[in-house]
Amino acid sequence: MIMTDKPAKYLMNTWYAAALSTDVSDQLMHRRLLDIPVVLYRKEDGTPVALQDKCPHRFAPLSLGKKKGDNVVCPYHGLAFNGEGQCVHNPHGRGHIPAKAHVVSYPLMEKYGFIWIWMGNEPADENQLPDYSQLDDGHANALAHTYMLRPCHYELITDNVMDLSHVDHLHGEIITTRGQLSPQMPRVVEDNGEISVRWEWHQTPAMMIFNDFLPRPNEEAAQFVVVTWSKPSHIQLTIGATQDHTSNEPLCYENTISQYDLHTCTPETENSSHYFFATRRNHNVEDGEFNKLKIAGMHGAFEDEDGPILDRVQEMMPNNDFLSLDPVLISSDAGPIRVRRVLKALIESEQTKQNEAVA
Amino acid sequence: MIMTDKPAKYLMNTWYAAALSTDVSDQLMHRRLLDIPVVLYRKEDGTPVALQDKCPHRFAPLSLGKKKGDNVVCPYHGLAFNGEGQCVHNPHGRGHIPAKAHVVSYPLMEKYGFIWIWMGNEPADENQLPDYSQLDDGHANALAHTYMLRPCHYELITDNVMDLSHVDHLHGEIITTRGQLSPQMPRVVEDNGEISVRWEWHQTPAMMIFNDFLPRPNEEAAQFVVVTWSKPSHIQLTIGATQDHTSNEPLCYENTISQYDLHTCTPETENSSHYFFATRRNHNVEDGEFNKLKIAGMHGAFEDEDGPILDRVQEMMPNNDFLSLDPVLISSDAGPIRVRRVLKALIESEQTKQNEAVA
Amino acid sequence: MIMTDKPAKYLMNTWYAAALSTDVSDQLMHRRLLDIPVVLYRKEDGTPVALQDKCPHRFAPLSLGKKKGDNVVCPYHGLAFNGEGQCVHNPHGRGHIPAKAHVVSYPLMEKYGFIWIWMGNEPADENQLPDYSQLDDGHANALAHTYMLRPCHYELITDNVMDLSHVDHLHGEIITTRGQLSPQMPRVVEDNGEISVRWEWHQTPAMMIFNDFLPRPNEEAAQFVVVTWSKPSHIQLTIGATQDHTSNEPLCYENTISQYDLHTCTPETENSSHYFFATRRNHNVEDGEFNKLKIAGMHGAFEDEDGPILDRVQEMMPNNDFLSLDPVLISSDAGPIRVRRVLKALIESEQTKQNEAVA
Repeated sequence: MIMTDKPAKYLMNTWYAAALSTDVSDQLMHRRLLDIPVVLYRKEDGTPVALQDKCPHRFAPLSLGKKKGDNVVCPYHGLAFNGEGQCVHNPHGRGHIPAKAHVVSYPLMEKYGFIWIWMGNEPADENQLPDYSQLDDGHANALAHTYMLRPCHYELITDNVMDLSHVDHLHGEIITTRGQLSPQMPRVVEDNGEISVRWEWHQTPAMMIFNDFLPRPNEEAAQFVVVTWSKPSHIQLTIGATQDHTSNEPLCYENTISQYDLHTCTPETENSSHYFFATRRNHNVEDGEFNKLKIAGMHGAFEDEDGPILDRVQEMMPNNDFLSLDPVLISSDAGPIRVRRVLKALIESEQTKQNEAVA
Repeated sequence: MIMTDKPAKYLMNTWYAAALSTDVSDQLMHRRLLDIPVVLYRKEDGTPVALQDKCPHRFAPLSLGKKKGDNVVCPYHGLAFNGEGQCVHNPHGRGHIPAKAHVVSYPLMEKYGFIWIWMGNEPADENQLPDYSQLDDGHANALAHTYMLRPCHYELITDNVMDLSHVDHLHGEIITTRGQLSPQMPRVVEDNGEISVRWEWHQTPAMMIFNDFLPRPNEEAAQFVVVTWSKPSHIQLTIGATQDHTSNEPLCYENTISQYDLHTCTPETENSSHYFFATRRNHNVEDGEFNKLKIAGMHGAFEDEDGPILDRVQEMMPNNDFLSLDPVLISSDAGPIRVRRVLKALIESEQTKQNEAVA
Repeated sequence: MIMTDKPAKYLMNTWYAAALSTDVSDQLMHRRLLDIPVVLYRKEDGTPVALQDKCPHRFAPLSLGKKKGDNVVCPYHGLAFNGEGQCVHNPHGRGHIPAKAHVVSYPLMEKYGFIWIWMGNEPADENQLPDYSQLDDGHANALAHTYMLRPCHYELITDNVMDLSHVDHLHGEIITTRGQLSPQMPRVVEDNGEISVRWEWHQTPAMMIFNDFLPRPNEEAAQFVVVTWSKPSHIQLTIGATQDHTSNEPLCYENTISQYDLHTCTPETENSSHYFFATRRNHNVEDGEFNKLKIAGMHGAFEDEDGPILDRVQEMMPNNDFLSLDPVLISSDAGPIRVRRVLKALIESEQTKQNEAVA
């Protein structure tokens, strides 16, 4: 059931992924974002549009209507709205357009293969989206995107990616870390509002996703992974393996067989999340077919391994404020808990500011 | 889930359609009406009976029991109730019938192919049902009835029928009005508590339902439609087309190729409605097969076109008081909004009266 | 949806059936009991274990994890818990085990083919489980157990078994009582907190379950049934038939063709119940195949006849305090109502005691 008009529980003045670029076309597409119904489409010149998916007249979903030029026509009584959300045609009576006849039009930005949406009341600020241009950098066949919907709160997914020690326990051969992450005290760094966690280790053989591309498959490899969270729910993850590293340079994308990924979540409702993913690699770059394997691996890991656990955790939680539920914390929680605290403070600060503006 | 004992949200001292006459037989039939479980059946002489479908002993549904003569026997412990709702047999112990051993029996009236129910506490008043005897007037093969259940509040259906401008936008060729209704300022008349809206227009060709019966098919025709709402949720709709009208008389059932319909809704629950429909026509009257087409057309239009929109509108509404949700109103809303205001006043007046009686 | 942390609505310091003995193995098994998620398994020596099925770290269900020796390993981050619920291994960081890293381990007792669980805070008292050792007494092939899950409150099932007059009205030939129970004023005896109801009657022929084993099938037989409730929700039922009884001794298991059954319910949630059943017979004792018929008969009677009524009764009840809903009571209610009152007093007394302990 679609519910509306809930009090804000999300960081609002920030960018969320609304859709993969490839999923938005000249067809009207409904998606619930931050508990608000949204209709997405592209104008004839390709510019994406996101409008509140609720006609202000009788609350019919515009996404069930028709696109006419760059406008959307409500299916129920034919009111037409332009890409700015303004009613531009009323076929009724003398055609008068009531002053309130408009819907919210949300600022969008198309970058890195995603359409990003700004749903807060403050002016959209393009600089608020971190620079993920490394995704764009390289052969077109070495970049892939995907999308999954999951019935759990988005912060459970953030927790999952920010504490990769779970890979030791939950995941199978393709991305196994062979128990090497858990014993480490993860290195957590907070810098300018971004939170990074880094692990380095050796394993034999390397993760299956890298093993075939190493000079001596099935032998020991040095591996690293680093995750960097940025508000509200973006995590850039770089992971790689090498058998040739001799310098003192830290392991990174450039000096290993590796990939540069973006995990980003957008709340659908309080208890369900859109999960978007992009992956850029620096090996086997011309092999477009290999993308299918990468994406199938992502779906397999998340949908068969993480997802079922997260759904059950969601069911166990009487509310979504994890830290209020008196969890037993362990060393590997350092990253995700830091993220939860920073995000909570940002949301509270935003709401205080809004309340002050109102008062 | 069946819930009971909610505070009254409906106009109670009035007639609602409980069932099509043809749907009630000597078999016990459960139907939830105004959020109250009801069992319907006919006595051996054919008189219909409606009892509260909840045994006062252990709350088992009587409709799962057996009919024995004119009585209903509870499936769980065999208490028998007559058509007045009085327990007339207790097979237990010494057979004592407790003073409280009765269920509510609701006054019924059978008319126009429907069984009407009065669920309020005041005495049932037969005169409160409008005169729809025109349904009975004509060839037996030119009358058809049907029934649909819809997961939306009944007032959304009333709105739908009282503002027929939506036909311009939502419906297909069979009943299209080709955009001719929306530009009109609908003529709304309130008379003695009844609210009528009338449209007249020309279109080429006429609606498919009339076109074949006109002298010059596919040529321009004059059309009219008039809807008349009566409390609580009855709408009589007459619609017709002609190519021969020359007098000054207004277009009506008698001087056009036309039909005389009744749309009437009964709340099942707060968010679902029984929708009943009857249609009488003045053309092709001996063709009983044609009824099947008429009824299939009604189901097609409502279930494929209106219904999906209304269901989504229901989901968008945090409560069922539409006018409290700050809608943008347009000229075509004049009829349905008048109806909503009159009905709201009637319900409030009835509840005030009841509260005064209690105090 | 799994919900946690509700206020206690159940008698807590008492034994409930958690599972059939045969359903608990070295595999982890999830079951919700008294609205609390529980994981059940056996240690290597066969001892059964019941732990709270929620890791205290991130609330993942331990039942999705792995058994390792006698311990359970959480699927998400690999914390291991022993059968006492103590965290015994933390693979993270320096392996420190936080003081709060334990889950509740519930006392169990295995008896009569069931695993019984004590979920209250007071020390488990083995003497609180009534003596049902008659189940163990006899040929192994003359004992059968089964389990059913039902979407209704457990007291509705208790009511059902404590007032067997419903068999006259609801059940078919296999266990029919041919209207002979309802006319009786059932004999209710309360003794030391246990409540018994006894009926005796003649019928022709006997219930089908006994008729074939009587000396003169299809002729009149004397029958009896006695049910004895013990807190919180155990009902021992003995039923038999005879054509040879001449002494003044009351009919009983020993002097009739009869069976000794245990019906016991455990709340799953507020509106659903685990229903466990065991049956011991004194005839046709070597015929193990006959058990299948007995169990199929139990499932048929409860799932096709009682269950659908109870589910609908549940839907009719705005809360589970039946006596607060102003039911019309009749003579046959004497047993179940006595049980409800005794149980309610026990729960209230326990909660008062707990509140005093807190204050």
